[in-house]
Amino acid sequence: MELLDGKKLSREILGEIKERLEDISGPRPCVTFIRVGEDPASVYYVNSKQKKAAQVGIESRLKTFPESISQEDLLGEISALNADPLVHGILVQAPLPDHMDERTVFNAVAPQKDVDGFSTNNLGRLVQEDPQAFVACTPAGIGEMVRRYKIETEGKHVVVLGRSLIVGKPAALLFMRKAPFANATVTVCHSRTRNLAAITSQADILIAAIGRANFVTADMVKEGAVVIDVGINRVDDPDSPKGYRIVGDVDFEAVSGKCQAISPVPGGVGLMTVALLMHNTVKAWELSQKE
Amino acid sequence: MELLDGKKLSREILGEIKERLEDISGPRPCVTFIRVGEDPASVYYVNSKQKKAAQVGIESRLKTFPESISQEDLLGEISALNADPLVHGILVQAPLPDHMDERTVFNAVAPQKDVDGFSTNNLGRLVQEDPQAFVACTPAGIGEMVRRYKIETEGKHVVVLGRSLIVGKPAALLFMRKAPFANATVTVCHSRTRNLAAITSQADILIAAIGRANFVTADMVKEGAVVIDVGINRVDDPDSPKGYRIVGDVDFEAVSGKCQAISPVPGGVGLMTVALLMHNTVKAWELSQKE
Repeated sequence: MELLDGKKLSREILGEIKERLEDISGPRPCVTFIRVGEDPASVYYVNSKQKKAAQVGIESRLKTFPESISQEDLLGEISALNADPLVHGILVQAPLPDHMDERTVFNAVAPQKDVDGFSTNNLGRLVQEDPQAFVACTPAGIGEMVRRYKIETEGKHVVVLGRSLIVGKPAALLFMRKAPFANATVTVCHSRTRNLAAITSQADILIAAIGRANFVTADMVKEGAVVIDVGINRVDDPDSPKGYRIVGDVDFEAVSGKCQAISPVPGGVGLMTVALLMHNTVKAWELSQKE
Repeated sequence: MELLDGKKLSREILGEIKERLEDISGPRPCVTFIRVGEDPASVYYVNSKQKKAAQVGIESRLKTFPESISQEDLLGEISALNADPLVHGILVQAPLPDHMDERTVFNAVAPQKDVDGFSTNNLGRLVQEDPQAFVACTPAGIGEMVRRYKIETEGKHVVVLGRSLIVGKPAALLFMRKAPFANATVTVCHSRTRNLAAITSQADILIAAIGRANFVTADMVKEGAVVIDVGINRVDDPDSPKGYRIVGDVDFEAVSGKCQAISPVPGGVGLMTVALLMHNTVKAWELSQKE
């Protein structure tokens, strides 16, 4: 069993980005984070993304707003960032307050600065197999993991567990493209799927993105499969100093014995997501220079 | 075995549209067709769509251009139609000459007039499950067929054979939505799929859109499945006055005995496609009135 080591891979990717940016002249790649309110998880995520950016030589800015900001005003702020030639990437940290429509806000980010890949335009370009499309960082991170571990996908059966806009659907679209490390037969399962185990057991590559701790058990996985675990779930753990620990959507202990390869949680896809955000920011910066 | 009768259904839909448009005041729904060159199939298709429009009270216009028109000039013409408040739908008939990029041309149609649903924006909105999205007429026609025949899809396994931008991918996205007559487990197969028969045999609903005459044989279909045949293929037939006849992607004679329901070719999905184009045109006209 091979461990798909997100720690090692993300270091590798971040190292390449750092090297790429070492001797540049002119404006450095710059990503601007927008955070509305003080949700502790959001504070933590944005903070850690900013640290990672600094490590590789990407400039980052943070704009924070109170929860009371109107959607109209927030859209105005995004519009100003869209027009700012020194800002190459814009990331609106979810979740947004209830009085806002997330889709409307995400769609307000200019397509060429949409490093999160959540806008209509980038999703449409992914369907169209446009290589310039920004692909959401988690599915893009999975794709990069598959590519760097040289996991064969052509003609293989990729089963995606979960149909979210952020992971499941773009991952499915990514692996069905006519492209290297794609060209797979793709199945999308979800909460309504009947006979789930019968379907997941057919997967050559199983991508678990359903958001339920240890949901994927050994009987759901084929001998010799590649399992990619996207879940980040808290479970109570009185033995841990924090009182909880983080586990994936896959019952790692039970499943790993059957796999050809598996990504752990933590230390797997989560780290790839952050690395791919940096990759997307550099891509946005490169695009801006071509214009 | 039930026949999914596209002739009957499309008449029903066109009848509803005709009734809907009988007593309207103000400008009638108007679709403009753009045809480049004199490809006989394109001449035929546009002509029959115009006839259908006239039957239901939709105005249609035809703009034809020589093959020699530059892409820039064609984009200029589309831009003028985008700005014309009396034109509600715009359809650029494929194929376009080799010197043009079809995606660029299709993307030039304003999203709210894109009755063919091929633009980046409408594909992205389909991924986002935006009910206002224009869905390409063939997959939308399949969806309507399923809805009007009350075929249960929730939790069922829909297998789509083919991953085209025009049928396979939007059909897959349509049936995986969280929506009535959707909520299905969806698999997309294609030319690279291994063990194809093993996968198609699992389909509760099999959508064949691979463009190969009689490709789907009885051993590829589960007993009691619903089979929807999107293929329109010519095969030689010396007994026919024309020397050929039209068949689908499914070996109808062999497969129909095993099915719960099947759509014939001709008389199936093809007629739904034209009916849904009229539906999309009325939708575009209604949207324009809300603005």
